[in-house]
Amino acid sequence: MRVPAEKLTALVAGIFQKLGLTAEDAKICADALVQADLSGVDTHGVSYYIELLYVPGIQTGKINPRPRIQTIHETPVTALLDGDGGMGFVVGTRAMEIAIQKAKESGVGLVTVKNSSHYGMGGYYPLMALAHDMIGLSMTSADRFVLPTFGRVPRVGTNPISVAVPTAEEPPFLLDMATSTVPMGKIMLARHEGAKLPQGWAADEEGRSTTDPEVAWDAKHLLPLGGTYEQGSHKGYGLSVLVEILSAILSGVQIRTDPELGAEAGHFFGAIRIDAFRPVGEFESMMDGYLRMLRNTPPVEGQERVYYAGLIEYETRQERIRHGIPLHDRVVTYLQKLANELGVEQQI
Amino acid sequence: MRVPAEKLTALVAGIFQKLGLTAEDAKICADALVQADLSGVDTHGVSYYIELLYVPGIQTGKINPRPRIQTIHETPVTALLDGDGGMGFVVGTRAMEIAIQKAKESGVGLVTVKNSSHYGMGGYYPLMALAHDMIGLSMTSADRFVLPTFGRVPRVGTNPISVAVPTAEEPPFLLDMATSTVPMGKIMLARHEGAKLPQGWAADEEGRSTTDPEVAWDAKHLLPLGGTYEQGSHKGYGLSVLVEILSAILSGVQIRTDPELGAEAGHFFGAIRIDAFRPVGEFESMMDGYLRMLRNTPPVEGQERVYYAGLIEYETRQERIRHGIPLHDRVVTYLQKLANELGVEQQI
Repeated sequence: MRVPAEKLTALVAGIFQKLGLTAEDAKICADALVQADLSGVDTHGVSYYIELLYVPGIQTGKINPRPRIQTIHETPVTALLDGDGGMGFVVGTRAMEIAIQKAKESGVGLVTVKNSSHYGMGGYYPLMALAHDMIGLSMTSADRFVLPTFGRVPRVGTNPISVAVPTAEEPPFLLDMATSTVPMGKIMLARHEGAKLPQGWAADEEGRSTTDPEVAWDAKHLLPLGGTYEQGSHKGYGLSVLVEILSAILSGVQIRTDPELGAEAGHFFGAIRIDAFRPVGEFESMMDGYLRMLRNTPPVEGQERVYYAGLIEYETRQERIRHGIPLHDRVVTYLQKLANELGVEQQI
Repeated sequence: MRVPAEKLTALVAGIFQKLGLTAEDAKICADALVQADLSGVDTHGVSYYIELLYVPGIQTGKINPRPRIQTIHETPVTALLDGDGGMGFVVGTRAMEIAIQKAKESGVGLVTVKNSSHYGMGGYYPLMALAHDMIGLSMTSADRFVLPTFGRVPRVGTNPISVAVPTAEEPPFLLDMATSTVPMGKIMLARHEGAKLPQGWAADEEGRSTTDPEVAWDAKHLLPLGGTYEQGSHKGYGLSVLVEILSAILSGVQIRTDPELGAEAGHFFGAIRIDAFRPVGEFESMMDGYLRMLRNTPPVEGQERVYYAGLIEYETRQERIRHGIPLHDRVVTYLQKLANELGVEQQI
């Protein structure tokens, strides 16, 4: 079933408002989720985490629907925020706005945040910087499902890195990557499909690489980007630790070893004004030239095209704006039922 | 043969001074190279690039031994520098000093640099930030030996990312990684040893993955971190493009597609003062706790220990400070001969 983005946004915003968020905050959450669906990042859209994380989080009091987000410390270029246990979308959007405001005034804005929660698709926040001719950056700590290289038990998260860079005419560069080879959602999908996992995705209870999706799902052990030491997993692991440092240690999130779902999250946001270095027009036209060079790379036999980060998401977005967002019946049924229970007026 | 670090530094500094650098700049180059050897990053020490890049670079006029490094644009937190074709070590050290100075005054310093050259081990520069209770960052564009995911010809560099984070008692966190699975030096070593390459390191002329080191060496085609799309190579590729953007596009290095050895390099440096966010003591003691948790991770069967980024380099350094730097006879002979030809007084 294809659903227009506006209709879906209105329904989801209605749900969050009935759950206790302000109209404005509910709109932010709905927009961030639907933007993920529009971009084809379906794992971070309306299909999974509303049911799995956000609704139970708010209903059990783990997530605070009306946070008082506070600035604990700041300088003209930095800030440390306390998210007061609010929805990650709300806390993240507010923090990114502060980073952008600081960059407007001072050229650069860096903001670290503690006491927040799952903030959805990481790429949502850096994209906010593009309209201001800035490079945008976001990172977040995530539940600890990833094994350190040589480790038998998980100690780091899938800790994603997201960076957006403005262009003149080309679709913007948008890198939005987990620092594990894959996020847990891909194990779940392979399991539903009964497909074998590629090497380098996951490990069994004992920390040994496995291609069996059932074994991987039971163990909840993901491998860092690279998969094995020989193939550079210490790099994926190192990037994951870096994200943890900037998002959680710099902000003061309590360190924990257990991989509890929906634990306190820390985030890191950055905004960098292009014209703090060189004229925007020159930079953006050089970006265009560089990205065109990349996507004009002759492809290897059997492939049709070479992409750059963000290009597939951009093209998917154009298609889904035109034709609507494809949703499983299961998801539509869940959202309708939830809306009815909560007395939300909007319908899909 | 084991050589004390001080002796090696004096010899190499003597060589660079005779090649036309000031005494101060020659000392910087020698120090950066010997620090790489001390840390066990032998590929970026005195063994290869002096002969391969730096001496011929200076002698053919490609590298400027007496650069006038200029600030083209700056704000209290940012700068764009022109390295005037100088040695990457000299330009990089000066740029990192500016980033640190800006961070001292304003909390954050970001510096992008064009018109520079190969700057050796990326970790050298961020380590300079630690004594100032700052997080240090460096990136550099590098010769284009890496294939984009699905690409048949190289279009990006091994473009390393290096970040150092201060601690109280633990060895500092130091991530220093190429964004390709391996740098070209590892192909060279495998070739000398006649060893098969692991999957995911390199490709043949047509861009197809290969495990034959001769084929890989002839093609000079490296694969991005991840190796294949299925195993996340679009992430390594995306990181490589990000490094190129910050180091080369933001600074204005001319875009070129040919993988010429020793082409113009661009760099990016960052310094972030911890106490622009939270008290240094609290942060550093939390870093200690976090890094201890990581290295105390129970290891997988067959492994003795779990590391974190920078730990092996730190331990190697302690050992080599005590016992000297191991060098191949070939390298010692080359350096002695070069020193004699140039009339350098120092001896190993």
